[in-house]
Amino acid sequence: MEKKITIGIIGAGRIGKLHAENIANNFKYVEIKTISDLYADKIADWAKSLGVKNVCSDYKEIINDPEIDAVLVCSSTNTHSQISYEAAKAGKHIFCEKPIDYDIDRIKKVMEAVDEAGVKFQVGFNRRFDHNFKRVRELVKEGKIGEPHIIKITSRDPEPPPIEYVKVSGGMMLDMTIHDFDMARYLSGSEVTEVYTSAAVLVDPEIGKAGDVDTAVITLKFKNGAIGVIDNSRKAAYGYDQRVEVFGSKGGITVSNDTPSSAVLSTSEGVFSDKPKYFFLERYKDSFIEELRDFFDAVLNDKPTPVTAIDGLKPVIIGLAAMESYKTGKPVKIEE
Amino acid sequence: MEKKITIGIIGAGRIGKLHAENIANNFKYVEIKTISDLYADKIADWAKSLGVKNVCSDYKEIINDPEIDAVLVCSSTNTHSQISYEAAKAGKHIFCEKPIDYDIDRIKKVMEAVDEAGVKFQVGFNRRFDHNFKRVRELVKEGKIGEPHIIKITSRDPEPPPIEYVKVSGGMMLDMTIHDFDMARYLSGSEVTEVYTSAAVLVDPEIGKAGDVDTAVITLKFKNGAIGVIDNSRKAAYGYDQRVEVFGSKGGITVSNDTPSSAVLSTSEGVFSDKPKYFFLERYKDSFIEELRDFFDAVLNDKPTPVTAIDGLKPVIIGLAAMESYKTGKPVKIEE
Amino acid sequence: MEKKITIGIIGAGRIGKLHAENIANNFKYVEIKTISDLYADKIADWAKSLGVKNVCSDYKEIINDPEIDAVLVCSSTNTHSQISYEAAKAGKHIFCEKPIDYDIDRIKKVMEAVDEAGVKFQVGFNRRFDHNFKRVRELVKEGKIGEPHIIKITSRDPEPPPIEYVKVSGGMMLDMTIHDFDMARYLSGSEVTEVYTSAAVLVDPEIGKAGDVDTAVITLKFKNGAIGVIDNSRKAAYGYDQRVEVFGSKGGITVSNDTPSSAVLSTSEGVFSDKPKYFFLERYKDSFIEELRDFFDAVLNDKPTPVTAIDGLKPVIIGLAAMESYKTGKPVKIEE
Amino acid sequence: MEKKITIGIIGAGRIGKLHAENIANNFKYVEIKTISDLYADKIADWAKSLGVKNVCSDYKEIINDPEIDAVLVCSSTNTHSQISYEAAKAGKHIFCEKPIDYDIDRIKKVMEAVDEAGVKFQVGFNRRFDHNFKRVRELVKEGKIGEPHIIKITSRDPEPPPIEYVKVSGGMMLDMTIHDFDMARYLSGSEVTEVYTSAAVLVDPEIGKAGDVDTAVITLKFKNGAIGVIDNSRKAAYGYDQRVEVFGSKGGITVSNDTPSSAVLSTSEGVFSDKPKYFFLERYKDSFIEELRDFFDAVLNDKPTPVTAIDGLKPVIIGLAAMESYKTGKPVKIEE
Repeated sequence: MEKKITIGIIGAGRIGKLHAENIANNFKYVEIKTISDLYADKIADWAKSLGVKNVCSDYKEIINDPEIDAVLVCSSTNTHSQISYEAAKAGKHIFCEKPIDYDIDRIKKVMEAVDEAGVKFQVGFNRRFDHNFKRVRELVKEGKIGEPHIIKITSRDPEPPPIEYVKVSGGMMLDMTIHDFDMARYLSGSEVTEVYTSAAVLVDPEIGKAGDVDTAVITLKFKNGAIGVIDNSRKAAYGYDQRVEVFGSKGGITVSNDTPSSAVLSTSEGVFSDKPKYFFLERYKDSFIEELRDFFDAVLNDKPTPVTAIDGLKPVIIGLAAMESYKTGKPVKIEE
Repeated sequence: MEKKITIGIIGAGRIGKLHAENIANNFKYVEIKTISDLYADKIADWAKSLGVKNVCSDYKEIINDPEIDAVLVCSSTNTHSQISYEAAKAGKHIFCEKPIDYDIDRIKKVMEAVDEAGVKFQVGFNRRFDHNFKRVRELVKEGKIGEPHIIKITSRDPEPPPIEYVKVSGGMMLDMTIHDFDMARYLSGSEVTEVYTSAAVLVDPEIGKAGDVDTAVITLKFKNGAIGVIDNSRKAAYGYDQRVEVFGSKGGITVSNDTPSSAVLSTSEGVFSDKPKYFFLERYKDSFIEELRDFFDAVLNDKPTPVTAIDGLKPVIIGLAAMESYKTGKPVKIEE
Repeated sequence: MEKKITIGIIGAGRIGKLHAENIANNFKYVEIKTISDLYADKIADWAKSLGVKNVCSDYKEIINDPEIDAVLVCSSTNTHSQISYEAAKAGKHIFCEKPIDYDIDRIKKVMEAVDEAGVKFQVGFNRRFDHNFKRVRELVKEGKIGEPHIIKITSRDPEPPPIEYVKVSGGMMLDMTIHDFDMARYLSGSEVTEVYTSAAVLVDPEIGKAGDVDTAVITLKFKNGAIGVIDNSRKAAYGYDQRVEVFGSKGGITVSNDTPSSAVLSTSEGVFSDKPKYFFLERYKDSFIEELRDFFDAVLNDKPTPVTAIDGLKPVIIGLAAMESYKTGKPVKIEE
Repeated sequence: MEKKITIGIIGAGRIGKLHAENIANNFKYVEIKTISDLYADKIADWAKSLGVKNVCSDYKEIINDPEIDAVLVCSSTNTHSQISYEAAKAGKHIFCEKPIDYDIDRIKKVMEAVDEAGVKFQVGFNRRFDHNFKRVRELVKEGKIGEPHIIKITSRDPEPPPIEYVKVSGGMMLDMTIHDFDMARYLSGSEVTEVYTSAAVLVDPEIGKAGDVDTAVITLKFKNGAIGVIDNSRKAAYGYDQRVEVFGSKGGITVSNDTPSSAVLSTSEGVFSDKPKYFFLERYKDSFIEELRDFFDAVLNDKPTPVTAIDGLKPVIIGLAAMESYKTGKPVKIEE
């Protein structure tokens, strides 16, 4: 197959690098023409090893390049909306890392520019492409459990991020739970209408001093009548805990954690098995490839993207409401 | 071993009969001298087959019998507190089915009488004696998961009760969730300080017409800082769903459902395994024996009972608060 | 229900006591009139506590008692066939512990006497009544896996028996594997036509010195074309390991071990779950009751017993062939 | 990293293509200079898309190319030994697909040439690199189960191969079970000294007519005293069944099948989960990459290869003995 899409990648931090390598190894029909990064010098050798021709420090070179069809916005969070806006204005298709922004108006401005330009826009909610969660969604969609009544999401990190990161992250609800808000919408196929947050600082008092929480149970009401509950912790001693359950009128579906192996060791001490895969790079490895496959398919074949700008907006709205609920101690309604 | 305890059983409905048979088959040192029931005629043959000498229709015969050491109060719910009160006044040890009452003052009156008489009092929260939940509690107590942070309880019935029962049951929170409120206290080793209920009528509109709900997600805050969440449904298509999870600073514990067999059938259609044991009589069979073992042990050896009158009171208080939360749409604090 | 069967129990060792207690607690319609034991004095109090009227040291008192309908032969192995023979001659129904004998001719003599007397005869292969294995057999019978092709049985004890016992036990094949030979016939629904034994002394050299083996893999050929394999060990460090698998033209069935609880503990050290239930008394607790239920049902309602004298004979024949195979190092055919 | 190894691939059938793509996507430091195939025309476009410069129909071009350091022998089975021999003579490092040959003398001739040339030689027993089996081996090596006593391998294909393939495959023992013979040696860390085969035609009579079997239970004795058992079927209705168990003096280890997802669906019909991953390309996907990683590491850093020519020879010897055992109906000893 000939290379049919020419792209630029803006930002070559951990996630930008991951995408670049996944593209080089899995999508022969995609050419990464240019990668921009504030520290362009440092990425030159790595980019060359992937067969990328250009490296630059100014992302505008990518946006102004008429040969480039699509951009991946992998820069720091606070630049996502501005760069996406400019890319849309320049007629580029956009794959934007989550979150688009923490400011709803700025997200809406991106949405307008995208609509106007008629370009494809996809947000990087990669967990929708995970083999387990995708299977749950399929079974729900096929009606195997009838109408969803209760949606449960367990999402716990193996370790809290550095305290410096906590301070600038926008808080656990917008940094970590935002994935779960997206998952709740994805699994239920419905919109959240109310949120109630019960949260605490139980893992590390420093997180509390930084104005954030590290443990939370968040109740959601959905438009279709279902009730959801997310439980989060910044520190699960046994590793990355990512499970969901959807319960409905005709049955229920659960998924458990993936493990490095299925080995079970039985001794006089007890029966031992593997801990979950350590963290998101191991656990969601394939999902990062699958989300790009769908994005490139949408661009090449003029299909809708599977995770739209609206899907980027809604979890931010829920996250802000969840924070408000935590601060006021009351449930918070979400306008449509 | 000689028969060392002589007891009377008040009420021979489903649960009274179960206790009587469990005692006859498992506790050679316990003599059931008398069983009272409003329909004494109907139980005479059955009682005889168990070796029980007397059957009567008036429970006062039991309470006034100086040979009887202890009574099992298995009559209809609205008589529990009055009979327990009279039994305490008569100096009998008391095993009382849950709930003691739905009226807090009447429970407190029983508690006072019990204290004054210095008799043993145990409430029939049998799930504490279940092999799975007991193991979870042990592991928590042993500090295996450190400080508890999140307590999760899933409790779903296979079928809603008859609508006539729903109308007089006191509502799902007091009839069904009350077991889960007890479990939450038992597993966490702490008291509930706040409750928030999100509930709905999703199973059967008739339940809604009867003023009750059939689906709920209830968030609890505990004195020790932990957060709890209970999810309930009146109808799990696949059967009785009884799982818990306790997550803490050093790890987590989960228990899954018990099944009739461990058989797994793999065919071209898929991989099939057993549904959970059908309902509480199958699922909690052994726990009904174990709770009595501990009660008789407390009586014989003058030990504290494992589920006290306070343990009977607290879940009622939480249940009433959970209902208030549902009605007001707000979290409700629980005074100590 | 009135007491409809009057029985005597011959031998009150571990298994005789177990049966007596199971009967007293579960079968109100069965009266244990007499228990005989060489050490009658030592069992008197225990027998009385069960409501048994007579205790004697000579089993002939039971066999000659015209009021007794059925006997349970629970005496030492070397007396099973003689007592069964006498009981049949006396017209008693017989429940005989396994094995009937290690001598095929003596088993056949029992079978003739049983046929002649027209009494019921059941052998104590209790594992057929286990919830797991019964479920496997049902699924096989229902044709869920089509024609059986491969039958696999894992059977490992937690500890070897005392070396004194090993010396008189008849060898592992007749003492331990005999249960698995029965299970192989039960699960496959077919007869064994050839056996090949690969065995070794890997657990304890003392067992080898006593002329026995402690580890074995035994291959079976069945009349219906299927192939079977049993693996045994006298010592599984993690406890009693009892699993089976039946694989056929349309699929396969496996059963795993039962555990005391379903609790799973996850910590930074790993994921821990329960070891199997410790040994046969815990693991097969209910099966001992179920086999008697069927025996009493056969006696009361003139039905065939579920485990006949032929079922007692065949595993002994296979066991002797398995030993011959081990000694000669060659497969051994089994005549029909 | 610069490209440090230049290789040629001989044969671009299914496995040759798989290796070429895995190398292009995962090993930047490996350059595939040339691919030879009898139908060179048909692979030209595909090879170009991977960045391969040359395509040819004569493998000798690769063997005679002084720039090429190593070759992958992926041609038809009957050419493996001859090509490997020539490659060794030309001083190339060799990765040879299994089996090297079915003729022991021809394998030995290759071994001599390899030794003489001092080149690296690795056989494509990819399953040793599977996450599950590798974990079992590690645990055995770490002594977690003490001395191995019983090794069990279940290996069942989802569908028999075409009957035309069966006729030329060398028979199930050399075509399919050969992987299990390798696994037996790998897991036990010991050599097989005796083999006994019980086999049958139960899946498809056409396989029998072609002189082969489709179902087998094969018992192995190991030099270290352990006993092994392999069970095979050409058709597991539920898919590819690949499990192992190692049982030893201190415990046991089992691994179960990998599945596409961990989703469990519970309905009124039962509890359903995923079938195993369909066949070897899905199931052992990563192992094909890992075996090459180790081969390239051995070449680059002058380390021993993890699967040597001896490891290629031994399973063929065992396979031939297993066939002899099937034909004679007797156990067959294996000389060292």
